[in-house]
Amino acid sequence: MKQIKIGVVGATGYTGEELIRILAGHPQVELTYVSGKEDRSEKIQDIFPYLEGKVDLACKAFSAEEAIEKTDLVFLSLPHTVSMQYVPLFLKAGKKVIDVSADYRLKDPAVYEKFYKAPHADTANLEQAVYGIPEIHRVEIKSAELVANPGCYPTGAILGLLPGLNPPTGGGVFAPDTIQIDAKSGVTGAGRKAVKELSFSEVNESLKAYKLFEHQHVPEIDQELSNAAGENVNVVFVPHLIPINRGILSTIYVKLSKTIDTERLLKIYAEFYKGEPFVHVYEAGRLPEVRHVANTNLCHIGLKVNTDKALAVIVVAIDNLGKGAAGQAVQNMNVMCGFEETTALL
Amino acid sequence: MKQIKIGVVGATGYTGEELIRILAGHPQVELTYVSGKEDRSEKIQDIFPYLEGKVDLACKAFSAEEAIEKTDLVFLSLPHTVSMQYVPLFLKAGKKVIDVSADYRLKDPAVYEKFYKAPHADTANLEQAVYGIPEIHRVEIKSAELVANPGCYPTGAILGLLPGLNPPTGGGVFAPDTIQIDAKSGVTGAGRKAVKELSFSEVNESLKAYKLFEHQHVPEIDQELSNAAGENVNVVFVPHLIPINRGILSTIYVKLSKTIDTERLLKIYAEFYKGEPFVHVYEAGRLPEVRHVANTNLCHIGLKVNTDKALAVIVVAIDNLGKGAAGQAVQNMNVMCGFEETTALL
Amino acid sequence: MKQIKIGVVGATGYTGEELIRILAGHPQVELTYVSGKEDRSEKIQDIFPYLEGKVDLACKAFSAEEAIEKTDLVFLSLPHTVSMQYVPLFLKAGKKVIDVSADYRLKDPAVYEKFYKAPHADTANLEQAVYGIPEIHRVEIKSAELVANPGCYPTGAILGLLPGLNPPTGGGVFAPDTIQIDAKSGVTGAGRKAVKELSFSEVNESLKAYKLFEHQHVPEIDQELSNAAGENVNVVFVPHLIPINRGILSTIYVKLSKTIDTERLLKIYAEFYKGEPFVHVYEAGRLPEVRHVANTNLCHIGLKVNTDKALAVIVVAIDNLGKGAAGQAVQNMNVMCGFEETTALL
Amino acid sequence: MKQIKIGVVGATGYTGEELIRILAGHPQVELTYVSGKEDRSEKIQDIFPYLEGKVDLACKAFSAEEAIEKTDLVFLSLPHTVSMQYVPLFLKAGKKVIDVSADYRLKDPAVYEKFYKAPHADTANLEQAVYGIPEIHRVEIKSAELVANPGCYPTGAILGLLPGLNPPTGGGVFAPDTIQIDAKSGVTGAGRKAVKELSFSEVNESLKAYKLFEHQHVPEIDQELSNAAGENVNVVFVPHLIPINRGILSTIYVKLSKTIDTERLLKIYAEFYKGEPFVHVYEAGRLPEVRHVANTNLCHIGLKVNTDKALAVIVVAIDNLGKGAAGQAVQNMNVMCGFEETTALL
Repeated sequence: MKQIKIGVVGATGYTGEELIRILAGHPQVELTYVSGKEDRSEKIQDIFPYLEGKVDLACKAFSAEEAIEKTDLVFLSLPHTVSMQYVPLFLKAGKKVIDVSADYRLKDPAVYEKFYKAPHADTANLEQAVYGIPEIHRVEIKSAELVANPGCYPTGAILGLLPGLNPPTGGGVFAPDTIQIDAKSGVTGAGRKAVKELSFSEVNESLKAYKLFEHQHVPEIDQELSNAAGENVNVVFVPHLIPINRGILSTIYVKLSKTIDTERLLKIYAEFYKGEPFVHVYEAGRLPEVRHVANTNLCHIGLKVNTDKALAVIVVAIDNLGKGAAGQAVQNMNVMCGFEETTALL
Repeated sequence: MKQIKIGVVGATGYTGEELIRILAGHPQVELTYVSGKEDRSEKIQDIFPYLEGKVDLACKAFSAEEAIEKTDLVFLSLPHTVSMQYVPLFLKAGKKVIDVSADYRLKDPAVYEKFYKAPHADTANLEQAVYGIPEIHRVEIKSAELVANPGCYPTGAILGLLPGLNPPTGGGVFAPDTIQIDAKSGVTGAGRKAVKELSFSEVNESLKAYKLFEHQHVPEIDQELSNAAGENVNVVFVPHLIPINRGILSTIYVKLSKTIDTERLLKIYAEFYKGEPFVHVYEAGRLPEVRHVANTNLCHIGLKVNTDKALAVIVVAIDNLGKGAAGQAVQNMNVMCGFEETTALL
Repeated sequence: MKQIKIGVVGATGYTGEELIRILAGHPQVELTYVSGKEDRSEKIQDIFPYLEGKVDLACKAFSAEEAIEKTDLVFLSLPHTVSMQYVPLFLKAGKKVIDVSADYRLKDPAVYEKFYKAPHADTANLEQAVYGIPEIHRVEIKSAELVANPGCYPTGAILGLLPGLNPPTGGGVFAPDTIQIDAKSGVTGAGRKAVKELSFSEVNESLKAYKLFEHQHVPEIDQELSNAAGENVNVVFVPHLIPINRGILSTIYVKLSKTIDTERLLKIYAEFYKGEPFVHVYEAGRLPEVRHVANTNLCHIGLKVNTDKALAVIVVAIDNLGKGAAGQAVQNMNVMCGFEETTALL
Repeated sequence: MKQIKIGVVGATGYTGEELIRILAGHPQVELTYVSGKEDRSEKIQDIFPYLEGKVDLACKAFSAEEAIEKTDLVFLSLPHTVSMQYVPLFLKAGKKVIDVSADYRLKDPAVYEKFYKAPHADTANLEQAVYGIPEIHRVEIKSAELVANPGCYPTGAILGLLPGLNPPTGGGVFAPDTIQIDAKSGVTGAGRKAVKELSFSEVNESLKAYKLFEHQHVPEIDQELSNAAGENVNVVFVPHLIPINRGILSTIYVKLSKTIDTERLLKIYAEFYKGEPFVHVYEAGRLPEVRHVANTNLCHIGLKVNTDKALAVIVVAIDNLGKGAAGQAVQNMNVMCGFEETTALL
């Protein structure tokens, strides 16, 4: 039954850990290679002791050669700018790659360079990379060799805006130049790092906004929304750090370009996501909460129209490590490998 | 040295508790009366054991007669619609009142009735009530007999918007009809209550928005901002519940009516709050965090202009029990009684 | 493939919710009946919206008749003293019962009455009830009609002490009359309730001990340890409330009756739990942490011997809703129904 | 009124920050020198923005020379083994020193070397150093030039055990060789550090025990309890890390050497701490909670006797940064300088 050999490069970070947790329960894949940084132990189950009895695998220092030899498909959870050094090697060797870094998300290398402070080193493969939100790009993902797994903030923002920008029935109801995203993220979104600003007593019992207008996730959001809207979209994006482990709640403000009420807008959303196993649109009067999507691959969406102001407020909840990272990455793998899309995912 | 006898009615809630904590350290006042609900003990220091050795006072079932007899000034921390039944008695007896409920905040009884679902029962005194933000109404507060202590959300929102709506040099730089307030509050803001939705495991590790556009604090904000702007203001207000005890972070989005950059807008704010002991405007590049205002009466403000979008984002941090409730109430008392305004306040 | 029809009575509490979450992913059972209290909606997926698309089931007011008609096996998550009113009905109708309440845990009705302030109403079935820790009573559970699912505290304490009281090689190494259990529990352990003491701001940023020596879980621990030790055991038990959602860490102090060092004691533990899929004994120098067992059915055990004091300290981590409640209940179901014991469990 | 010039060396850690917060409100002292590490800004109020308007002081790289020149009394919040390099310089210059490190707490240099892995470099001054718990050593502190401010865990443990080891009426009621301390600490106790283990998502929603039997605070506890008991005491000490910012709850288990019940033991405690402004002994049936001592210099003690087991369980709550560090340091300063002992302390 185990059909595919899987590697996770960068297994000791939060996304890597979540990938392994999910993949350990996937009936059609076998974890055959994991690598970590200086904080690795000999065995991955020594680092994450709940894996004891489920996974028995050395956690190596990363070797592309060994990873290529041992796997059919690899998840690369490497730092930005590092990933693109290795992706070509995997692709050349005929391996499928799901890149969790930002290296293949932005189609325009100039935009990449602006936000990641380094020229893109693999523009050759950039073109074929598919932006990995299955709800939008399912067909391309099916045949992709390289999937760029989206950022956590973009996943919530894009899923929350797409139906109104580009309804199934045609004719957007949102004014694309008026989008303001007030996003609130749990702390795992910042990665497993030894930095004072992320230490418990600095984050706990506090709240802050950061990187106003200049977060590196902005161009991802703009790229996908521009595609959907058929015009150039530049969002206002204000992220906040919230003292929870997992979850993003995005509160999105957008002006309506047509007169529409809450019920009818919800209908557009429900229609747009009909049949999607991981996206759930709430009925009028109810809004999503992070606790209902934590530890899942779900995206919950609620909204309300303010008629006086010709404004819609859309509230989107995801787990930043689920639909915002590892969950979506496994969903992409399921699509790429022809597995049932929901396999191993909650 | 103890010049004034003080009562706290509704002493067992979060605001009541914070009032007593602050007043116990105030050198010019003496706590002479406290009352609580069914959850009171015989002594207030049995309920809040850190008061042992500082306060020795029975915690009674509320009797207006007894409160009037024993106090010169009373803080009323009663439920909305209850307060206005008792305020007239205190005023008639010549006592000063700081009403922590919403009963005297809204000048228009029709608006009050709309949001609090009851006709106003004391319109006679409504007119003389002063909305208690000393940074705006200091002169009126000085001679007031009745101060309506503001709501926690309004305090942050109003202080964060006033300078740009009504700069010291005249001529607003904000378009008043474009204000959107995305507010994030700690849980004490909801009061000390036995309700399932506020229990630890429902709130912890979660986030949610609630009461979109229809929170009862909206008319307070509109009233004060309309006064400042000299025109009718209706804000978009979206509150969120955040798993921290104390603190509100308000992220305010407003369109600019004039071309202005971050530095110059900050200069207007700094000028506006010059000399104010409790309001601090950050320099460009820095934003407030809740942890720096928690357990204080401070209001910290930072902002950034998005020139492309002709938009300002203002971030305001207060402690909802400090500047958002009990702290500001004591500040009001200090002004009303001619004490040094910062006495007993951090 | 769905072989068994399952009911969850008391589905809206934390244990009920967790049962449904787990059972929704179980390939061999079908949820056919759920009931809740006054806080139920029409559909269980409206209460727990992450179930949307996975479960579609009305959430009824409890009717024993309907539950009996619709199910083969029922989980009863009812209050203590209520459960024993209904258990006989289910048993008489030939249904298997896993009772999550305390009603069938204590073999001695007099002890039950002392701790639960009510005489036992179903002593007839009490005798046949099996105390549901599969690691101890697997054989009896296999053929049981009625399993008394253990309390959360007892599960951790018993699993942590058993190997030293009754080693596989015979001859206890612990002095049974010296056991002191300092237990720290997350807040879901107290149930989903509207009580002020459990509200977020009362629990968050605090710690407390409660019910010293008199917690109702004491007799369960004593009963099972007495059986294991072959003599009367009375533990000292001090529970604490900790501001986390899920998890119990029990720090157990016990005097050694024989000279033994950490390595050799660990060997006894490893031998005792050899082959157990859910119990993991750490190597010397490492201790369990709640985060590694949260959201699982795992029990992690570490320990260290203080030779000077002839004392062992055993640290046990479980998830109070996992191995401490719903996880173990499903493990019991798997054993009772002849399913693979780990099915649907992490 | 400002009589004394004060320096805080190591001002950017949690204890340093708390010292400055308290001292900024002290009417009889003036902060004249603060120094920090690489993370300092030009001004201390830029690091801790709530100090704006209260303190205006450069935050320098530490220079003992400058500190000596500018101060009468200095708080040294330096790492262990560093402090003892500078203390002699301050003392020689006639300055009073309150050392917050562990360097002068242990009277026996051999024990110091064993636990801090370095020989003591200033045994000359070690002898005159007074262990700074005013409730025990008030007379010596009054005339001390050098006070060794106690560790956070020892403060709670010692205050919780002293009355029973050495009652005012003579004749201990505790068996000194049976003491077991199960301590639970908030995260600020570990200091402001960039280490992965203390990052938010590692600590939040988890619990763990650490350093069983070998924590460096053990010899402090043993030293002071041995003095009190008049015999050699070696405690069993098991610390735990809890996801709160501030506070320690110590649950202490000790065998009774005499028959005594809860009421009579409480009477001994109440008598022992009679008149102490910061220590509060609860009545029977009530136990301390961290939330009631957080942000204060208080120590709250409750207890219960288990007659069957001839055991007392004592529960002690302090704030690890209050009575466990900065609060007690200021209390010591007040005693050393002849100020009212409670000045500036809650």
